[in-house]
Amino acid sequence: MKIQLALDRMEIAEAIELTRKVTDSIDWIEVGTSLIKEFGVASVRELKQAFPAKTVVADIKTIDNGRYEFEMCFEAGADVATVMGVSPLVTIDACMEVARRYNKKVMIDLLNTSSEQKSALMKYKEAIFCDHVSKDEQEEAGSLNRGDKDGQLFDDPAIQVAAAGGITLESIGALRATLNPAVAIIGSAITKAENPAEAADKFKQVCQQEELV
Amino acid sequence: MKIQLALDRMEIAEAIELTRKVTDSIDWIEVGTSLIKEFGVASVRELKQAFPAKTVVADIKTIDNGRYEFEMCFEAGADVATVMGVSPLVTIDACMEVARRYNKKVMIDLLNTSSEQKSALMKYKEAIFCDHVSKDEQEEAGSLNRGDKDGQLFDDPAIQVAAAGGITLESIGALRATLNPAVAIIGSAITKAENPAEAADKFKQVCQQEELV
Repeated sequence: MKIQLALDRMEIAEAIELTRKVTDSIDWIEVGTSLIKEFGVASVRELKQAFPAKTVVADIKTIDNGRYEFEMCFEAGADVATVMGVSPLVTIDACMEVARRYNKKVMIDLLNTSSEQKSALMKYKEAIFCDHVSKDEQEEAGSLNRGDKDGQLFDDPAIQVAAAGGITLESIGALRATLNPAVAIIGSAITKAENPAEAADKFKQVCQQEELV
Repeated sequence: MKIQLALDRMEIAEAIELTRKVTDSIDWIEVGTSLIKEFGVASVRELKQAFPAKTVVADIKTIDNGRYEFEMCFEAGADVATVMGVSPLVTIDACMEVARRYNKKVMIDLLNTSSEQKSALMKYKEAIFCDHVSKDEQEEAGSLNRGDKDGQLFDDPAIQVAAAGGITLESIGALRATLNPAVAIIGSAITKAENPAEAADKFKQVCQQEELV
Protein backbone atom coordinates (compact mmCIF):
# COMPACT_ATOMS: atom_id res chain seq x y z
CA MET A 1 0.00 0.00 0.00
CA LYS A 2 1.47 3.33 -1.13
CA ILE A 3 1.03 6.52 0.87
CA GLN A 4 -0.14 9.61 -1.01
CA LEU A 5 0.39 12.72 1.11
CA ALA A 6 -2.45 15.19 0.49
CA LEU A 7 -1.39 18.82 0.89
CA ASP A 8 -4.34 21.14 1.45
CA ARG A 9 -5.25 24.50 2.97
CA MET A 10 -1.68 25.82 3.20
CA GLU A 11 0.79 28.00 1.28
CA ILE A 12 3.05 26.42 -1.39
CA ALA A 13 6.20 27.09 0.68
CA GLU A 14 4.58 25.46 3.69
CA ALA A 15 3.63 22.44 1.57
CA ILE A 16 7.22 22.04 0.38
CA GLU A 17 8.61 22.43 3.90
CA LEU A 18 6.15 19.91 5.29
CA THR A 19 6.84 17.40 2.53
CA ARG A 20 10.58 17.67 3.19
CA LYS A 21 10.00 16.53 6.78
CA VAL A 22 8.15 13.37 5.74
CA THR A 23 9.62 12.62 2.33
CA ASP A 24 11.27 9.32 3.36
CA SER A 25 7.99 7.89 4.61
CA ILE A 26 5.64 8.81 1.78
CA ASP A 27 5.37 7.63 -1.83
CA TRP A 28 3.21 10.10 -3.74
CA ILE A 29 2.67 13.83 -3.22
CA GLU A 30 -0.82 15.24 -3.83
CA VAL A 31 -1.08 18.93 -4.63
CA GLY A 32 -4.55 19.42 -3.13
CA THR A 33 -7.45 21.12 -4.89
CA SER A 34 -7.27 24.00 -2.42
CA LEU A 35 -3.66 24.72 -3.41
CA ILE A 36 -4.47 24.64 -7.13
CA LYS A 37 -7.53 26.87 -6.76
CA GLU A 38 -5.75 29.30 -4.43
CA PHE A 39 -2.37 29.54 -6.16
CA GLY A 40 -2.95 28.05 -9.60
CA VAL A 41 -0.92 25.44 -11.43
CA ALA A 42 2.28 27.03 -10.09
CA SER A 43 1.60 24.90 -7.00
CA VAL A 44 2.02 21.74 -9.08
CA ARG A 45 5.12 23.07 -10.82
CA GLU A 46 6.83 24.10 -7.58
CA LEU A 47 6.12 20.83 -5.78
CA LYS A 48 7.42 18.79 -8.73
CA GLN A 49 10.54 20.98 -8.93
CA ALA A 50 11.16 20.49 -5.23
CA PHE A 51 10.61 16.70 -5.41
CA PRO A 52 11.43 15.61 -8.97
CA ALA A 53 11.85 11.94 -7.99
CA LYS A 54 8.39 11.69 -6.42
CA THR A 55 5.13 10.94 -8.19
CA VAL A 56 3.11 14.17 -8.04
CA VAL A 57 -0.69 14.00 -8.17
CA ALA A 58 -2.50 17.18 -9.26
CA ASP A 59 -5.90 17.01 -7.54
CA ILE A 60 -7.45 19.34 -10.09
CA LYS A 61 -10.90 17.66 -9.91
CA THR A 62 -11.68 18.27 -13.57
CA ILE A 63 -15.38 18.14 -14.47
CA ASP A 64 -15.22 19.87 -17.86
CA ASN A 65 -12.55 21.20 -20.21
CA GLY A 66 -10.64 17.91 -19.79
CA ARG A 67 -8.04 18.35 -22.48
CA TYR A 68 -7.06 21.87 -21.40
CA GLU A 69 -6.85 21.12 -17.69
CA PHE A 70 -4.97 17.83 -18.08
CA GLU A 71 -2.44 19.27 -20.52
CA MET A 72 -1.91 22.12 -18.06
CA CYS A 73 -1.23 19.68 -15.19
CA PHE A 74 1.11 17.43 -17.14
CA GLU A 75 3.00 20.39 -18.62
CA ALA A 76 3.50 21.62 -15.05
CA GLY A 77 5.09 18.30 -14.11
CA ALA A 78 2.22 16.27 -12.64
CA ASP A 79 2.46 12.50 -13.05
CA VAL A 80 -1.21 11.90 -12.19
CA ALA A 81 -4.22 14.24 -12.42
CA THR A 82 -7.76 13.78 -11.12
CA VAL A 83 -11.10 13.93 -12.92
CA MET A 84 -14.50 13.61 -11.26
CA GLY A 85 -16.44 10.39 -11.80
CA VAL A 86 -19.61 12.52 -11.96
CA SER A 87 -18.32 14.23 -15.13
CA PRO A 88 -19.81 13.55 -18.55
CA LEU A 89 -17.98 10.52 -19.98
CA VAL A 90 -16.74 12.64 -22.88
CA THR A 91 -14.70 14.65 -20.35
CA ILE A 92 -13.14 11.51 -18.89
CA ASP A 93 -12.40 10.28 -22.43
CA ALA A 94 -10.52 13.53 -23.05
CA CYS A 95 -8.50 13.12 -19.84
CA MET A 96 -7.61 9.52 -20.73
CA GLU A 97 -6.49 10.59 -24.19
CA VAL A 98 -4.23 13.33 -22.83
CA ALA A 99 -2.77 10.98 -20.21
CA ARG A 100 -1.95 8.37 -22.83
CA ARG A 101 -0.31 11.00 -25.01
CA TYR A 102 1.85 12.25 -22.10
CA ASN A 103 2.41 8.72 -20.74
CA LYS A 104 0.84 9.83 -17.44
CA LYS A 105 -2.01 8.58 -15.27
CA VAL A 106 -5.64 9.54 -14.63
CA MET A 107 -7.19 9.20 -11.19
CA ILE A 108 -10.99 9.11 -11.26
CA ASP A 109 -12.43 10.61 -8.09
CA LEU A 110 -15.62 8.72 -7.17
CA LEU A 111 -16.94 11.43 -4.81
CA ASN A 112 -20.76 11.30 -4.91
CA THR A 113 -20.90 9.06 -8.03
CA SER A 114 -23.91 6.73 -8.19
CA SER A 115 -23.56 2.94 -8.53
CA GLU A 116 -24.68 3.22 -12.16
CA GLN A 117 -22.06 5.85 -12.87
CA LYS A 118 -19.38 3.73 -11.19
CA SER A 119 -20.28 0.73 -13.33
CA ALA A 120 -19.99 2.84 -16.47
CA LEU A 121 -16.56 4.05 -15.35
CA MET A 122 -15.08 0.59 -14.94
CA LYS A 123 -14.23 0.55 -18.66
CA TYR A 124 -11.35 2.92 -17.92
CA LYS A 125 -9.01 0.07 -17.01
CA GLU A 126 -5.87 2.23 -17.10
CA ALA A 127 -7.23 4.69 -14.53
CA ILE A 128 -6.78 4.68 -10.77
CA PHE A 129 -10.16 4.78 -8.99
CA CYS A 130 -10.35 6.90 -5.88
CA ASP A 131 -12.96 5.95 -3.29
CA HIS A 132 -13.45 9.36 -1.70
CA VAL A 133 -15.32 10.47 1.40
CA SER A 134 -15.37 14.24 0.96
CA LYS A 135 -14.11 16.76 3.49
CA ASP A 136 -17.60 18.18 3.89
CA GLU A 137 -19.17 14.75 4.41
CA GLN A 138 -16.53 13.92 7.01
CA GLU A 139 -17.21 17.12 8.88
CA GLU A 140 -20.94 16.42 8.92
CA ALA A 141 -20.94 12.70 9.65
CA GLY A 142 -17.88 12.60 11.87
CA SER A 143 -17.30 9.05 10.68
CA LEU A 144 -16.63 7.24 7.45
CA ASN A 145 -18.91 5.07 5.44
CA ARG A 146 -17.01 3.19 2.79
CA GLY A 147 -15.92 -0.29 1.81
CA ASP A 148 -18.42 -3.07 1.17
CA LYS A 149 -20.69 -1.37 -1.30
CA ASP A 150 -17.87 -0.04 -3.45
CA GLY A 151 -15.77 -3.12 -2.87
CA GLN A 152 -18.03 -5.10 -5.18
CA LEU A 153 -17.21 -2.80 -8.06
CA PHE A 154 -13.51 -3.17 -7.40
CA ASP A 155 -13.47 -6.96 -7.69
CA ASP A 156 -11.49 -6.82 -10.92
CA PRO A 157 -7.88 -7.28 -9.73
CA ALA A 158 -6.64 -5.25 -12.70
CA ILE A 159 -8.33 -2.11 -11.29
CA GLN A 160 -6.06 0.11 -9.21
CA VAL A 161 -7.88 1.58 -6.22
CA ALA A 162 -7.04 4.55 -4.00
CA ALA A 163 -8.89 5.63 -0.87
CA ALA A 164 -9.22 9.16 0.45
CA GLY A 165 -10.98 10.94 3.26
CA GLY A 166 -10.26 11.01 6.96
CA ILE A 167 -7.80 8.10 7.04
CA THR A 168 -6.07 7.94 10.41
CA LEU A 169 -3.67 5.56 12.14
CA GLU A 170 -6.72 4.22 13.95
CA SER A 171 -8.77 3.60 10.79
CA ILE A 172 -6.15 2.39 8.34
CA GLY A 173 -6.39 -1.18 9.64
CA ALA A 174 -10.11 -1.40 8.85
CA LEU A 175 -9.51 0.15 5.44
CA ARG A 176 -6.94 -2.54 4.65
CA ALA A 177 -9.29 -5.26 5.80
CA THR A 178 -12.11 -4.06 3.55
CA LEU A 179 -11.10 -2.07 0.46
CA ASN A 180 -7.33 -2.75 0.67
CA PRO A 181 -6.42 0.04 -1.73
CA ALA A 182 -3.16 0.27 -3.67
CA VAL A 183 -2.90 3.89 -2.53
CA ALA A 184 -3.96 5.36 0.82
CA ILE A 185 -4.41 9.11 0.57
CA ILE A 186 -3.58 10.72 3.89
CA GLY A 187 -3.90 14.40 4.67
CA SER A 188 -4.41 15.95 8.05
CA ALA A 189 -3.42 12.79 9.99
CA ILE A 190 0.11 13.67 8.83
CA THR A 191 0.00 17.38 7.99
CA LYS A 192 -1.73 18.38 11.23
CA ALA A 193 0.08 15.91 13.47
CA GLU A 194 2.13 17.42 16.26
CA ASN A 195 5.12 15.63 14.73
CA PRO A 196 4.43 15.02 11.03
CA ALA A 197 7.64 13.01 10.46
CA GLU A 198 6.77 10.64 13.29
CA ALA A 199 3.15 10.27 12.08
CA ALA A 200 4.26 9.57 8.49
CA ASP A 201 6.76 7.02 9.74
CA LYS A 202 4.04 5.19 11.66
CA PHE A 203 1.85 5.06 8.55
CA LYS A 204 4.83 3.74 6.58
CA GLN A 205 5.37 0.98 9.11
CA VAL A 206 1.74 -0.11 8.83
CA CYS A 207 1.93 -0.12 5.04
CA GLN A 208 5.17 -2.09 4.98
CA GLN A 209 3.94 -4.62 7.52
CA GLU A 210 1.11 -5.37 5.19
CA GLU A 211 3.41 -5.99 2.25
CA LEU A 212 5.29 -8.63 4.23
CA VAL A 213 2.11 -10.61 4.92
CA MET B 1 -31.79 39.13 -19.69
CA LYS B 2 -28.36 39.93 -18.26
CA ILE B 3 -25.13 39.06 -20.09
CA GLN B 4 -22.43 37.28 -18.11
CA LEU B 5 -19.12 37.40 -20.00
CA ALA B 6 -17.21 34.14 -19.42
CA LEU B 7 -13.43 34.58 -19.53
CA ASP B 8 -11.61 31.31 -20.18
CA ARG B 9 -8.35 29.93 -21.54
CA MET B 10 -6.44 33.23 -21.46
CA GLU B 11 -4.02 35.19 -19.25
CA ILE B 12 -5.38 37.52 -16.54
CA ALA B 13 -4.06 40.64 -18.32
CA GLU B 14 -5.72 39.48 -21.54
CA ALA B 15 -9.00 38.94 -19.65
CA ILE B 16 -8.87 42.47 -18.26
CA GLU B 17 -8.02 43.98 -21.64
CA LEU B 18 -10.82 42.07 -23.34
CA THR B 19 -13.36 43.03 -20.69
CA ARG B 20 -12.43 46.69 -21.05
CA LYS B 21 -13.39 46.53 -24.74
CA VAL B 22 -16.89 45.19 -24.03
CA THR B 23 -17.61 46.58 -20.58
CA ASP B 24 -20.50 48.81 -21.67
CA SER B 25 -22.38 45.90 -23.24
CA ILE B 26 -22.06 43.27 -20.53
CA ASP B 27 -23.51 43.00 -17.02
CA TRP B 28 -21.58 40.33 -15.13
CA ILE B 29 -17.95 39.18 -15.45
CA GLU B 30 -17.20 35.48 -15.01
CA VAL B 31 -13.67 34.54 -14.02
CA GLY B 32 -13.65 31.14 -15.73
CA THR B 33 -12.60 27.88 -14.08
CA SER B 34 -9.56 27.70 -16.36
CA LEU B 35 -8.32 31.07 -15.08
CA ILE B 36 -8.79 30.08 -11.44
CA LYS B 37 -7.07 26.70 -11.89
CA GLU B 38 -4.24 28.18 -13.94
CA PHE B 39 -3.56 31.37 -11.97
CA GLY B 40 -5.37 30.84 -8.68
CA VAL B 41 -7.72 33.18 -6.86
CA ALA B 42 -5.53 36.14 -7.88
CA SER B 43 -7.51 36.01 -11.13
CA VAL B 44 -10.70 36.85 -9.22
CA ARG B 45 -8.98 39.57 -7.18
CA GLU B 46 -7.47 41.27 -10.23
CA LEU B 47 -10.67 41.23 -12.26
CA LYS B 48 -12.67 42.69 -9.35
CA GLN B 49 -10.02 45.39 -8.81
CA ALA B 50 -10.14 46.29 -12.49
CA PHE B 51 -13.97 46.40 -12.56
CA PRO B 52 -15.16 47.18 -9.02
CA ALA B 53 -18.63 48.27 -10.18
CA LYS B 54 -19.35 44.99 -12.00
CA THR B 55 -20.75 41.80 -10.51
CA VAL B 56 -17.89 39.28 -10.61
CA VAL B 57 -18.69 35.56 -10.76
CA ALA B 58 -15.95 33.17 -9.62
CA ASP B 59 -16.57 29.97 -11.58
CA ILE B 60 -14.70 27.88 -9.00
CA LYS B 61 -16.92 24.79 -9.53
CA THR B 62 -16.72 23.70 -5.90
CA ILE B 63 -17.52 20.03 -5.28
CA ASP B 64 -16.02 19.69 -1.79
CA ASN B 65 -14.46 21.97 0.82
CA GLY B 66 -17.32 24.41 0.33
CA ARG B 67 -16.65 26.74 3.22
CA TYR B 68 -12.95 27.18 2.43
CA GLU B 69 -13.40 27.73 -1.29
CA PHE B 70 -16.34 30.11 -0.97
CA GLU B 71 -14.68 32.21 1.73
CA MET B 72 -11.62 32.39 -0.52
CA CYS B 73 -13.69 33.64 -3.47
CA PHE B 74 -15.65 36.22 -1.49
CA GLU B 75 -12.53 37.48 0.28
CA ALA B 76 -10.99 37.97 -3.17
CA GLY B 77 -13.94 40.16 -4.17
CA ALA B 78 -16.29 37.78 -5.97
CA ASP B 79 -20.00 38.63 -5.77
CA VAL B 80 -21.13 35.17 -6.92
CA ALA B 81 -19.36 31.80 -6.76
CA THR B 82 -20.29 28.47 -8.33
CA VAL B 83 -20.84 25.04 -6.76
CA MET B 84 -21.59 21.87 -8.69
CA GLY B 85 -25.13 20.48 -8.48
CA VAL B 86 -23.59 16.99 -8.40
CA SER B 87 -21.90 17.78 -5.06
CA PRO B 88 -23.06 16.22 -1.80
CA LEU B 89 -25.84 18.45 -0.42
CA VAL B 90 -23.74 19.16 2.68
CA THR B 91 -21.25 20.96 0.42
CA ILE B 92 -23.98 23.10 -1.12
CA ASP B 93 -25.31 23.83 2.38
CA ALA B 94 -21.85 25.10 3.34
CA CYS B 95 -21.67 27.34 0.26
CA MET B 96 -25.15 28.78 0.99
CA GLU B 97 -24.14 29.48 4.58
CA VAL B 98 -20.98 31.33 3.54
CA ALA B 99 -22.85 33.32 0.89
CA ARG B 100 -25.48 34.42 3.42
CA ARG B 101 -22.76 35.44 5.84
CA TYR B 102 -20.97 37.55 3.18
CA ASN B 103 -24.26 38.77 1.65
CA LYS B 104 -23.20 37.25 -1.68
CA LYS B 105 -24.75 34.78 -4.12
CA VAL B 106 -24.37 31.08 -4.93
CA MET B 107 -24.71 29.82 -8.50
CA ILE B 108 -25.45 26.08 -8.69
CA ASP B 109 -23.99 24.60 -11.88
CA LEU B 110 -26.32 21.85 -13.14
CA LEU B 111 -23.71 20.23 -15.39
CA ASN B 112 -24.47 16.49 -15.59
CA THR B 113 -26.91 16.54 -12.63
CA SER B 114 -29.73 13.98 -12.84
CA SER B 115 -33.41 14.94 -12.70
CA GLU B 116 -33.57 13.56 -9.14
CA GLN B 117 -30.60 15.68 -8.08
CA LYS B 118 -32.13 18.76 -9.72
CA SER B 119 -35.38 18.26 -7.82
CA ALA B 120 -33.47 18.01 -4.54
CA LEU B 121 -31.64 21.24 -5.34
CA MET B 122 -34.78 23.31 -5.85
CA LYS B 123 -34.94 23.92 -2.11
CA TYR B 124 -32.04 26.40 -2.46
CA LYS B 125 -34.42 29.22 -3.40
CA GLU B 126 -31.78 31.94 -2.95
CA ALA B 127 -29.40 30.34 -5.44
CA ILE B 128 -29.06 31.01 -9.16
CA PHE B 129 -29.41 27.76 -11.16
CA CYS B 130 -27.13 27.42 -14.15
CA ASP B 131 -28.33 25.17 -16.95
CA HIS B 132 -24.95 24.21 -18.38
CA VAL B 133 -23.95 22.36 -21.54
CA SER B 134 -20.28 21.63 -20.87
CA LYS B 135 -17.42 22.59 -23.18
CA ASP B 136 -16.57 18.93 -23.74
CA GLU B 137 -20.19 18.02 -24.55
CA GLN B 138 -20.39 20.92 -27.01
CA GLU B 139 -17.21 19.82 -28.72
CA GLU B 140 -18.53 16.29 -29.07
CA ALA B 141 -22.11 16.98 -30.03
CA GLY B 142 -21.57 20.13 -32.03
CA SER B 143 -25.06 21.23 -31.02
CA LEU B 144 -26.97 22.01 -27.85
CA ASN B 145 -29.65 20.03 -26.18
CA ARG B 146 -31.37 22.03 -23.48
CA GLY B 147 -34.68 23.58 -22.69
CA ASP B 148 -37.91 21.64 -22.31
CA LYS B 149 -36.77 18.95 -19.92
CA ASP B 150 -35.11 21.34 -17.51
CA GLY B 151 -37.75 23.97 -18.13
CA GLN B 152 -40.20 21.94 -16.07
CA LEU B 153 -37.95 22.21 -13.05
CA PHE B 154 -37.65 25.94 -13.49
CA ASP B 155 -41.39 26.59 -13.45
CA ASP B 156 -41.16 28.34 -10.06
CA PRO B 157 -40.94 32.03 -11.01
CA ALA B 158 -38.96 32.72 -7.85
CA ILE B 159 -36.05 30.61 -9.17
CA GLN B 160 -33.32 32.59 -10.94
CA VAL B 161 -31.97 30.74 -13.96
CA ALA B 162 -28.75 31.19 -15.93
CA ALA B 163 -27.78 29.37 -19.11
CA ALA B 164 -24.27 28.53 -20.26
CA GLY B 165 -22.62 26.65 -23.06
CA GLY B 166 -22.16 27.56 -26.69
CA ILE B 167 -24.61 30.48 -26.77
CA THR B 168 -24.25 32.42 -30.03
CA LEU B 169 -26.07 35.30 -31.69
CA GLU B 170 -27.78 32.63 -33.81
CA SER B 171 -28.94 30.51 -30.84
CA ILE B 172 -29.86 33.17 -28.27
CA GLY B 173 -33.32 33.62 -29.82
CA ALA B 174 -34.21 29.97 -29.32
CA LEU B 175 -32.82 30.09 -25.79
CA ARG B 176 -35.10 33.02 -24.96
CA ALA B 177 -38.09 31.23 -26.45
CA THR B 178 -37.53 28.11 -24.34
CA LEU B 179 -35.60 28.61 -21.08
CA ASN B 180 -35.68 32.44 -21.05
CA PRO B 181 -32.93 32.71 -18.41
CA ALA B 182 -32.30 35.75 -16.25
CA VAL B 183 -28.61 35.46 -17.14
CA ALA B 184 -27.12 34.35 -20.46
CA ILE B 185 -23.50 33.26 -20.03
CA ILE B 186 -21.55 34.00 -23.18
CA GLY B 187 -17.92 33.10 -23.74
CA SER B 188 -16.25 32.53 -27.08
CA ALA B 189 -19.07 34.16 -29.09
CA ILE B 190 -17.70 37.40 -27.64
CA THR B 191 -14.12 36.62 -26.61
CA LYS B 192 -13.19 34.94 -29.90
CA ALA B 193 -15.17 37.27 -32.14
CA GLU B 194 -13.16 39.23 -34.68
CA ASN B 195 -14.53 42.36 -33.05
CA PRO B 196 -15.50 41.56 -29.44
CA ALA B 197 -16.98 45.03 -28.79
CA GLU B 198 -19.27 44.73 -31.79
CA ALA B 199 -20.31 41.18 -30.88
CA ALA B 200 -21.06 42.17 -27.27
CA ASP B 201 -23.07 45.15 -28.48
CA LYS B 202 -25.19 42.89 -30.71
CA PHE B 203 -25.89 40.58 -27.76
CA LYS B 204 -26.85 43.61 -25.68
CA GLN B 205 -29.29 44.79 -28.32
CA VAL B 206 -30.97 41.37 -28.36
CA CYS B 207 -31.22 41.33 -24.57
CA GLN B 208 -32.61 44.87 -24.39
CA GLN B 209 -35.16 44.22 -27.15
CA GLU B 210 -36.51 41.42 -25.07
CA GLU B 211 -36.94 43.58 -22.00
CA LEU B 212 -39.11 45.99 -23.97
CA VAL B 213 -41.53 43.21 -24.97
